[in-house]
Amino acid sequence: MTHNLDDRIRHAGLRDRIMSAEEAARLIGDGMVLGMSGFTRAGEAKAVPLALAERARKEPLQITLMTGASLGNDLDKTLAEAHAISRRIPFQSDPFLRKKINAGEVMFIDQHLSETVEQLRNRQIPGVDIAVIEAVAITENGGVVPTTSVGNSASFAILAPKVIVEINLSQPVGLEGLHDIYIPSYRPNRMPIPVVTPESRVGLPYIPIPPEKIAAIVLTEKQDSSSTILDPDEDTRAIAGHLTEFLMHEVRQGRLDERLAPLQAGIGTIANAVLHGFLDTPFHDLKMYSEVLQDSTFDLMDAGKMTFASGSSVTLSARKYAQMLPRFAEFKPKLLLRPQEISNHPEVVRRLGIIAINTALEFDIYGNVNSTHVTGTQMMNGIGGSGDFARNAYLSVFVTKSIAKGGSISCVVPMVSHVDHTEHDVDILVTEQGLADLRGLAPRERARVIIANCVHPAWRPRIEDYYARALTRSGHTPHVLEEALSWHVRSQETGRMD
Amino acid sequence: MTHNLDDRIRHAGLRDRIMSAEEAARLIGDGMVLGMSGFTRAGEAKAVPLALAERARKEPLQITLMTGASLGNDLDKTLAEAHAISRRIPFQSDPFLRKKINAGEVMFIDQHLSETVEQLRNRQIPGVDIAVIEAVAITENGGVVPTTSVGNSASFAILAPKVIVEINLSQPVGLEGLHDIYIPSYRPNRMPIPVVTPESRVGLPYIPIPPEKIAAIVLTEKQDSSSTILDPDEDTRAIAGHLTEFLMHEVRQGRLDERLAPLQAGIGTIANAVLHGFLDTPFHDLKMYSEVLQDSTFDLMDAGKMTFASGSSVTLSARKYAQMLPRFAEFKPKLLLRPQEISNHPEVVRRLGIIAINTALEFDIYGNVNSTHVTGTQMMNGIGGSGDFARNAYLSVFVTKSIAKGGSISCVVPMVSHVDHTEHDVDILVTEQGLADLRGLAPRERARVIIANCVHPAWRPRIEDYYARALTRSGHTPHVLEEALSWHVRSQETGRMD
Repeated sequence: MTHNLDDRIRHAGLRDRIMSAEEAARLIGDGMVLGMSGFTRAGEAKAVPLALAERARKEPLQITLMTGASLGNDLDKTLAEAHAISRRIPFQSDPFLRKKINAGEVMFIDQHLSETVEQLRNRQIPGVDIAVIEAVAITENGGVVPTTSVGNSASFAILAPKVIVEINLSQPVGLEGLHDIYIPSYRPNRMPIPVVTPESRVGLPYIPIPPEKIAAIVLTEKQDSSSTILDPDEDTRAIAGHLTEFLMHEVRQGRLDERLAPLQAGIGTIANAVLHGFLDTPFHDLKMYSEVLQDSTFDLMDAGKMTFASGSSVTLSARKYAQMLPRFAEFKPKLLLRPQEISNHPEVVRRLGIIAINTALEFDIYGNVNSTHVTGTQMMNGIGGSGDFARNAYLSVFVTKSIAKGGSISCVVPMVSHVDHTEHDVDILVTEQGLADLRGLAPRERARVIIANCVHPAWRPRIEDYYARALTRSGHTPHVLEEALSWHVRSQETGRMD
Repeated sequence: MTHNLDDRIRHAGLRDRIMSAEEAARLIGDGMVLGMSGFTRAGEAKAVPLALAERARKEPLQITLMTGASLGNDLDKTLAEAHAISRRIPFQSDPFLRKKINAGEVMFIDQHLSETVEQLRNRQIPGVDIAVIEAVAITENGGVVPTTSVGNSASFAILAPKVIVEINLSQPVGLEGLHDIYIPSYRPNRMPIPVVTPESRVGLPYIPIPPEKIAAIVLTEKQDSSSTILDPDEDTRAIAGHLTEFLMHEVRQGRLDERLAPLQAGIGTIANAVLHGFLDTPFHDLKMYSEVLQDSTFDLMDAGKMTFASGSSVTLSARKYAQMLPRFAEFKPKLLLRPQEISNHPEVVRRLGIIAINTALEFDIYGNVNSTHVTGTQMMNGIGGSGDFARNAYLSVFVTKSIAKGGSISCVVPMVSHVDHTEHDVDILVTEQGLADLRGLAPRERARVIIANCVHPAWRPRIEDYYARALTRSGHTPHVLEEALSWHVRSQETGRMD
């Protein structure tokens, strides 16, 4: 290694804690709760969990794994294959782990991403025994400087009795200064969170912990996995187009100006494509107050459309990462990474008045949204931060393509098979077919707008027929109850809803 | 009238605006949006809406009626019978109006109670044309002093171009000083809401509006309706007992001390009974940060158990009201009424760390709660503030009796027919059978605890059978999808779930 560790471990007394990942992993005992860095495939500890998986293949070893959100480098897969995970909190997106969750072999606690550390702090769930945090450096006073995500790392490290730090030498030391670590004070003396704009810097550039808690330091060079988002296609461009048109209407009505309001966009292809769509609009001086910053954030900055972005992680495609790295000094003053408790905090989201854009798996004719469960039973990834944002947003937008699986599934259904966001929390629904503005509408009015604007033409007659028959039954929210879930039942049986 | 109007209308220039309710009601035109005071049968304007109903019986006149929450004095009934209401926002609890809502004749927009004025302020829903606000007095500068509720009155009066004030001479002038009117500033310059304890006084004791906006003053003497809560019975005592036992366990675990945390309790018999149950506990120095203050608040104060209560309204039984009135000077320093946007504000609820106790209509084996829709279609009252509190509470508790209608309905079901509070927002479920602590549990673990602790014995075999068969299907949240709503379908058809 050619790196100078003086820069990386500035607290000289800690340098003798350097050990191999295997040695560090031996600090972790069977049944422990591990609090690990990592949020949307960014900034996860990499060496220690792999060493742990290796151990678990040879001896009985099962842990509760808590993270910020999803992990890269196939860590959830590798740990799950080694039977090392008994419980997983609060989010995941790995196909193999998902299989074990749906088989009931791993207990998955699917939480609003802002809430996990609140429950930990209150000791309402079992505490973290060991925190494993990826860092670019340890400061003179033992402070831990995270890498490409903050996630729950700060609270994990602060609350755990022992901390393992993975210094990732492939992550530039220049990341220092990017983070803003603010932890709410304990009740009953909690004060307002002083974030009043996306740019508000209210904490420390490192996680403050007593150096003696750092039980091991492991050096790695493994990189973050790049994101897997797909390029915009015709449908995602149409979704972006409908939303842009709507927002321009809001500008003309004087409810917004061309700077819009701080933007949040969920992880994934569609939300990223929607933000990309803002490149071709008159909107300018945009800001983000989001959880994950994706390629689109940097494209908007490059196009002079976006001036600042606050998030909890940076997750880029390999191409974008390569482009950005040499220009990092240019971007850094426009970026800030916060603990996910703060990036997603209801207090701040409501105060700033955010336009929240999240992806739905499906929604129903009354505006209820399913973000997590296929046919009401099979977990995909988890609710993530969508609820933190949607409930308190100025505008709560959910986007999805109107059909899935080549048209055999309609993403607009009579009744969603699982509810993550209730009718009370959804303002705008968008598919490639069009946009439904639900603000101020009663359920019967919502149904008419959603059916007219969002449903795929191939499914419209069926859904119109359902709604017409539901109306003959009366009710504030009319349903043919015995048929309400029948589309999901058929899709379970045949793979098709019709 | 023996009252001295000098006390009641201190801005002398406004005394010539006094007119009859009929004259004032003539200011209201067909199609207008009326923003009226009133929250949980407390402090609603009384004379003008009755005059309006009278007019609507003789001429075509339909309005959008926005309030804080439910109205007393049969106003919703009277207005609905007169066909005067086309739209109703954001809550109601009147059987006749409910019938018209379920028939699709009145459009009802069922909202989180903290959010209505946010949408009004942002002009996302049609604005209030005229505010009709009950008051005890108008100050020297034209400020309006509310009566027994604040609700949405302050924002209605501030945002409306015209205000009608009903001075209610039966409400004591001494109510002045009880209210704390704070309105969040406009974005993007919104500052933190400075409420940091239930006692925090952060605003004005009156609604500040330019006196020239006061278009009419109407004098009334009509009293608030008294509350209709029933006395505790064996079941509600058992619910209170289970919750008390749980909270004492939390104290023993060191997560709470005997002062607990600020309490919120929903409107109605069960929540009131639960608070009454705290009379026989070691808990002391309790405080409330709630929306409605019921009999139990004052009983706890009288017993020396509660030191302060912040709410948005006071709704008492006739007996309690008579007891309290002569002692009002004694209670007043321990009470504070806020706009419902602030009493229910996610920012404050999360900051204070509230124990939120709300009533469920039914919940399912995975912890989803239905608060509003019978058999998924028929609206009862609305979600009210339960979501404002449950989402951000330190402890989110939902209570219900385990059975309804003499046992023909189980209130614990395989799948709720409508979701108001998702599994992500529910910590504790209580029936007279027992309590389920869902914190940190995955869906399959929740199902076991809920079935074991909360289900009525008469229904347990059926629900165990459902769950056992669901488990054979796999899934993070196992269901027999084609049967999931069958209990509700049967109850629609036969009035019984079995």
